[in-house]
Amino acid sequence: MRATLMFGAGDVRVENVPDPELRQPTDAIVRVVRTCICGSDLHPYHTQPASADGVRMGHEFLGVVEDLGSEVSGLKRGDLVVAPFAFSDNTCEFCREGLHTSCTSGGFFSEAQSEALRVPQAQGTLVKLPVAEDSELLPSLLTLADVYGTGYHAAVKAGVNERTTVTVIGDGAVGLLAVLSAKQLGAERIILMGRHQTRTDLGREFGATDVVAERGEEGIAKVRELTGGFGTHTVLEAVGYRAAYDQAVGVVRPGGVISRVGVPQYEEAPVGFGSLFGPNITLNGGPAPVRAYIDALLPDVLDGRVEPGKVFDRTVTLDEVPDGYRAMDDRESLKVLVRP
Amino acid sequence: MRATLMFGAGDVRVENVPDPELRQPTDAIVRVVRTCICGSDLHPYHTQPASADGVRMGHEFLGVVEDLGSEVSGLKRGDLVVAPFAFSDNTCEFCREGLHTSCTSGGFFSEAQSEALRVPQAQGTLVKLPVAEDSELLPSLLTLADVYGTGYHAAVKAGVNERTTVTVIGDGAVGLLAVLSAKQLGAERIILMGRHQTRTDLGREFGATDVVAERGEEGIAKVRELTGGFGTHTVLEAVGYRAAYDQAVGVVRPGGVISRVGVPQYEEAPVGFGSLFGPNITLNGGPAPVRAYIDALLPDVLDGRVEPGKVFDRTVTLDEVPDGYRAMDDRESLKVLVRP
Repeated sequence: MRATLMFGAGDVRVENVPDPELRQPTDAIVRVVRTCICGSDLHPYHTQPASADGVRMGHEFLGVVEDLGSEVSGLKRGDLVVAPFAFSDNTCEFCREGLHTSCTSGGFFSEAQSEALRVPQAQGTLVKLPVAEDSELLPSLLTLADVYGTGYHAAVKAGVNERTTVTVIGDGAVGLLAVLSAKQLGAERIILMGRHQTRTDLGREFGATDVVAERGEEGIAKVRELTGGFGTHTVLEAVGYRAAYDQAVGVVRPGGVISRVGVPQYEEAPVGFGSLFGPNITLNGGPAPVRAYIDALLPDVLDGRVEPGKVFDRTVTLDEVPDGYRAMDDRESLKVLVRP
Repeated sequence: MRATLMFGAGDVRVENVPDPELRQPTDAIVRVVRTCICGSDLHPYHTQPASADGVRMGHEFLGVVEDLGSEVSGLKRGDLVVAPFAFSDNTCEFCREGLHTSCTSGGFFSEAQSEALRVPQAQGTLVKLPVAEDSELLPSLLTLADVYGTGYHAAVKAGVNERTTVTVIGDGAVGLLAVLSAKQLGAERIILMGRHQTRTDLGREFGATDVVAERGEEGIAKVRELTGGFGTHTVLEAVGYRAAYDQAVGVVRPGGVISRVGVPQYEEAPVGFGSLFGPNITLNGGPAPVRAYIDALLPDVLDGRVEPGKVFDRTVTLDEVPDGYRAMDDRESLKVLVRP
């Protein structure tokens, strides 16, 4: 079958690879119906060391169950399913606490930009979708695999509610869906920091009340000006660069929360008296336990009350995936949907 | 009057200074009945640059109101009062949220190791104590000014309750009172990391169920061993050195909280995928808004149900304060009470 491999920074190819096979009785094989390229895929696209064998790519997919291990129940061949970007048994102590990304039998998918893949812990991981393979809802349903759940995680961890003001840093798919999530959780004032107008326009459609295009000190000053000088109660950081962290520290209100879901491209950052400690700022977030949110988010997607799939602005075939990476990296495309 | 001044690292003197005077109609003058030396005073004791004029010291006190500005109500001359280490108006939007350390009219005391001092925002700051000036409860009541409220803040911010396991890092007064606070909030498993047995013995008396004397990687391994390999849900960091931060990251359970109240002696620290982000750790804490907790903590102190004053193991006169600093710095004394 065909699958996407990255052979180094900027070097994405679609090649023939062996078909996936069941290895554990808890596995399933899923034929991919929709997958996509993630903003976080651009990090290795910039930094991946060159390798002869390449590395399989992709962690977001929905598809049809083709085969099932003997210990998987509740699913059957032909089911249309969506998977969170992390697989998990959904029964361990961390899963029971809603932290599926720390599942003791879990891990992260990395082979989804392909025709098919093996799904470990299939019973705990896959969620059956009550629609047909040709449903117009597929793009929105695919966002449950990562970007919608990730934006929602940012808003939940920040404690967004009707009394909290919100700044969202980043106008990528996760940032825009953090706006949507904050709105769903009742926020009335949502400031979106982003400088690509087509994206921030979608942010306004999702619920942003203000857009700040400036960055760095200028952007911080603007947010403070909009919030009586103090910044917002919550800051949802959906970028992952150190500059975004510094911006978050600059716009968060004393006693507030910085919730990060952009994968940090740094290890150390300011946390001392002059940044987090003095004003009693909370820093949280991490890889979103998307599995924990699918059940809650699914009904509004099925009803069409929300349309998170609007973040997809281009659709490609599997063979066109390399150009999809290029388009996202060039900011020509916000998020690329793939129909294998 | 006599007051403590620090003229540089290791150079503490008690000298004559002008008597305090009312400056604002919201001020009070308080004669100090008890003050003390704080673990955080040892940081400048190690690092303060030399100066000709010296810097006034001390932020913990209880005393008797001697004079009041025209706009202070609810207090009268002769009242015995305790003050949180930060003064605040108790009415601004941050005070109303319980974040008195970020009061828009607030600040930190720094002249309490003396015979008397001026108290800004007296009405919002001072809390009347229903005991006499010779009460045996004074040491415990004095801990409401800082160390007890600070330990309590650590436990509250960490979300300690009967279902959370707790690690307390540091066997200083704040660490020990973080143990006491965690116990009050219902924690059943409290691991105290400290290596001074007289102190950890008091920690056990306050509620610690386990003591880990090892530090660094060895200490981390010990705590993990005690907790099924995962660490504790909450970590209360009451030291402030970077090594204590690293230890906190090492012993916190995925999805857990590191709550810091030790004043950070570092600005940058790891917060990336390998430390906080990957396992969805929350980092919070800061200077404790002690004023917010006094009303809740006072009854148990008055009833003798808790005796936080046990952290004082030496009492000195004002003129003996320099030796008190030395004794605390030499670990000869846990916490020094001062009777001016």
